[in-house]
Amino acid sequence: MKIGLIGTGNIGQYILRSVNLERVIPKAEVAAVYTRVKPKRDAISVPYKTKLYDDFDQFIKEDLDLVIEAATIQAVEAYAARILESKKNLLLVSVGALADADFLTELKQLCDDTNTSIYLPSGAIGGLDILKAAKSVGELNSVSITTRKPPKALLEETVDEEVILFEGTAKDAISKFPKNINVAIVLSLAGLGVDNTKVRIIADPYVGKNNHTIEATGSFGKMTLTVENDPMPSNPKTSYLAAISVISTLKNLYNCVHIG
Amino acid sequence: MKIGLIGTGNIGQYILRSVNLERVIPKAEVAAVYTRVKPKRDAISVPYKTKLYDDFDQFIKEDLDLVIEAATIQAVEAYAARILESKKNLLLVSVGALADADFLTELKQLCDDTNTSIYLPSGAIGGLDILKAAKSVGELNSVSITTRKPPKALLEETVDEEVILFEGTAKDAISKFPKNINVAIVLSLAGLGVDNTKVRIIADPYVGKNNHTIEATGSFGKMTLTVENDPMPSNPKTSYLAAISVISTLKNLYNCVHIG
Repeated sequence: MKIGLIGTGNIGQYILRSVNLERVIPKAEVAAVYTRVKPKRDAISVPYKTKLYDDFDQFIKEDLDLVIEAATIQAVEAYAARILESKKNLLLVSVGALADADFLTELKQLCDDTNTSIYLPSGAIGGLDILKAAKSVGELNSVSITTRKPPKALLEETVDEEVILFEGTAKDAISKFPKNINVAIVLSLAGLGVDNTKVRIIADPYVGKNNHTIEATGSFGKMTLTVENDPMPSNPKTSYLAAISVISTLKNLYNCVHIG
Repeated sequence: MKIGLIGTGNIGQYILRSVNLERVIPKAEVAAVYTRVKPKRDAISVPYKTKLYDDFDQFIKEDLDLVIEAATIQAVEAYAARILESKKNLLLVSVGALADADFLTELKQLCDDTNTSIYLPSGAIGGLDILKAAKSVGELNSVSITTRKPPKALLEETVDEEVILFEGTAKDAISKFPKNINVAIVLSLAGLGVDNTKVRIIADPYVGKNNHTIEATGSFGKMTLTVENDPMPSNPKTSYLAAISVISTLKNLYNCVHIG
């Protein structure tokens, strides 16, 4: 099964290495890559055994089952509709692009009309299986996420005690803390939407790594999930879980047993 | 899209009501039900507008996209292979049937050969998205689950302090605490398998409801998830989350946007 990839940054290269070199999904290969960054193209072509394009019109003509976007929100805005219109399934890493409700509605309509699918990996968080279950019968009452990071990731000065930098809805967090946008959006989409998902962002001198605590209540009962994110070995700014959740979504597509 | 249902117990009737009466998935309907319990058949036929069979050979000849098993482990053993052989997808509620590794291997081979899928809802727990991500790259190090229940659910006598009733592998828990088999198996399948998943079962006078705490470590970091299960309104012995996770799995099949 043939995959197209947009983006050759940290997560894009991780996908290339995992799929084409380590063959973590035996039936899948990245057959084509689209990137406008010429030095990246030159470095990637040979080792990963894939075709490279700097022209989207040519890239999208390839025979592909699925296109993975691992680039930017702007790339999603520019190309997502054309990918679905060409009857290719779409996996988005920059799920923050779906903060725009009109854009999300447009893409949903397109994937319904073209009988394609849009896949959104769970990213740096999890527990979305419980939120989706509660939401599926309309009985999810509250969802909140508290993100704690070491102060140096958020502040210029040092602090002795935790400092709450943001407390509000996911909608407000998107504009005020755009770095957290993917987490806020995937949580909102799985659960109660951007207006009803509560977000707190805290600079905490007592944590060594980023962590997220998700709390939810509904007719199912209550859940509390804390995940402490280790960084990617190749890039301390990316949560490793965000990268491997893409591989997990791909495996789920190509496996015949689907859990959760 | 046409669904066949095996079983008319608590979860089976919940599925029938949600899909055929409440229409929670507009595109789906339960078109045929197989049950050997005659009083159930008589009660179900008219209100749920579905065909009823007491003969599996006739049931499986129906034109169905998916068969949901919501009956017993014995029903999975008796019918799962024939469902896949007839090129129908299969959703299992009694995932405990897959504790038998040879049976699981046989079903995996069958679904590969027939190009069908087997769906396993997350049941009364969650956080499987994180375990699957870590497992997808082979970097999940440890998984444990601690289940706490009110003593009256587990013991004849009353106790003042928590009593650890079982501590061992999921494999041992399956034979010693068969009531917990679905949770132990779905957790093992998402993560490290029955030999490497640790299980503790505790009678705890300080909890009012069943709760599960899942802890996992790996190259992604660490996670701790606690879920407190409210019972189904219609049957206090079933976790409501187990029932609604089936609806969630169905919605994910029929929706074009797939989260997690």
